[in-house]
Amino acid sequence: MKLTIKVKPGTTVKLDKHDPDETFGLTEEQADERLAMLTDELGELQELLYAARQHSVLIILQGMDTSGKDGTVKKVMTDVNPLGCRVEAFKVPSEEELAHDFLWRVHKVVPPKGLMTIFNRSHYEDVLVVRVHELVAKRVWKSRFHQINEFERTLVESGTIIVKFFLHISKHEQQKRLQAREREAAKAWKLSPGDWQERELWEAYQSAYETALMRCSTAYAKWHIVPANQKWFRNLAVAEALVRTLRPYRKDWEKVLQKLSDRKLAELEAMRATRSADA
Amino acid sequence: MKLTIKVKPGTTVKLDKHDPDETFGLTEEQADERLAMLTDELGELQELLYAARQHSVLIILQGMDTSGKDGTVKKVMTDVNPLGCRVEAFKVPSEEELAHDFLWRVHKVVPPKGLMTIFNRSHYEDVLVVRVHELVAKRVWKSRFHQINEFERTLVESGTIIVKFFLHISKHEQQKRLQAREREAAKAWKLSPGDWQERELWEAYQSAYETALMRCSTAYAKWHIVPANQKWFRNLAVAEALVRTLRPYRKDWEKVLQKLSDRKLAELEAMRATRSADA
Repeated sequence: MKLTIKVKPGTTVKLDKHDPDETFGLTEEQADERLAMLTDELGELQELLYAARQHSVLIILQGMDTSGKDGTVKKVMTDVNPLGCRVEAFKVPSEEELAHDFLWRVHKVVPPKGLMTIFNRSHYEDVLVVRVHELVAKRVWKSRFHQINEFERTLVESGTIIVKFFLHISKHEQQKRLQAREREAAKAWKLSPGDWQERELWEAYQSAYETALMRCSTAYAKWHIVPANQKWFRNLAVAEALVRTLRPYRKDWEKVLQKLSDRKLAELEAMRATRSADA
Repeated sequence: MKLTIKVKPGTTVKLDKHDPDETFGLTEEQADERLAMLTDELGELQELLYAARQHSVLIILQGMDTSGKDGTVKKVMTDVNPLGCRVEAFKVPSEEELAHDFLWRVHKVVPPKGLMTIFNRSHYEDVLVVRVHELVAKRVWKSRFHQINEFERTLVESGTIIVKFFLHISKHEQQKRLQAREREAAKAWKLSPGDWQERELWEAYQSAYETALMRCSTAYAKWHIVPANQKWFRNLAVAEALVRTLRPYRKDWEKVLQKLSDRKLAELEAMRATRSADA
């Protein structure tokens, strides 16, 4: 069963058609059990990815404030070796970054072969917050959808597997989460008065997301819409989509490793033969 | 109980005085139980470190081939959020890196405040492999101990907590591990005929390690010698030393977070007061 909505290239996205409370009848207990198996499999796949060095994996996480980007990373990546996985968080761009095209800072940190990189926010902010706050002219952000698609095409054609997730929460759920941060001393440091101001632009953001999901879901790098009001379901859905994306590569990676192993063993034998001949 | 040997600044290190098989009478089961508690606590400490942004943590892992640097990262960092933790592996330097001083490539990737970075190999290679293979003149590598100490001092004086681990295995244990790689198809890709050649330089490496541990164990950045023949003990010992190092900061970080939370809540209130006055 697929737990995320894959955006079909060229189709229209209406976010209010997708229920952020969706859990496909699963209970939290069932979900946690499945998640444990999936994170385990993800750990294995990452090890193969790392060893085979045939592909790299780029995971893009986007979503409104409080949608759970940080929590998803923590809960889905539990069995992944930090050695082969890094998280890149994109904040307000620096002066130097702003002096370059918007893809510059992102391109610098895409994963090399063998590695898995998670973008916590990404180049999509340049068609989201930048659009909503009119930080550049309309013709500028409009030209970016095509630029993003071509950028991602280059990565994919160079062996990168791209998986993009939009964590879909409701406006009401966001309110609950922001209020919870105010009540819980241990979470209040995460607060930013700016969050409430951004919230007033909720509809503008949703609409900007709809455009981005429509314009940038390509055959080679599709967007997944993840029902994310229930955190346990969100974690399961992301893990499931990731494993489903990587699983088909497993056999190839194993074959490459087998060949590599054979070659290493042959080299070793040759070295030993030379040495005993020398002796 | 301390499970690692902390090298006291100014003392002599003789590696053969330290038993790599040491387990302090612990059983594997006991060790795994304690490890689970420690990794959990490490997860909490990392979250506080991340949120408080008062310090950064630099963990340096060194050891002979097969000493278990990769495995340690995987087993000790299980509850750490990848968001706040990155691993930097240092391989043979590139042409550009070689054209700079040896600390250049390392300095670029030290952790900023809030983050934890693990060096899988490090600037210490420049007084180890570089010395053993005579890649630079003796006076050059000799001058590096002081340079390293002053570099690390700068980091510490800027809020970095440095923890350095030497994973101590025996020559016999290395042989067993290399042979296991040859037997197990799933591990053979890790083989490198070079490993067996390096192994012939075992004594030269041990002696280079002894000098590095002696010369660069400072009051502000001590080396830990970790008995590492037993993988389960090695993981426990590293986790224990890490938690022991970070635990004293906990209260400070909590205080900082409390203040930050209070400030955020006050800002929020002020914003709301202005708004209702406007309305």
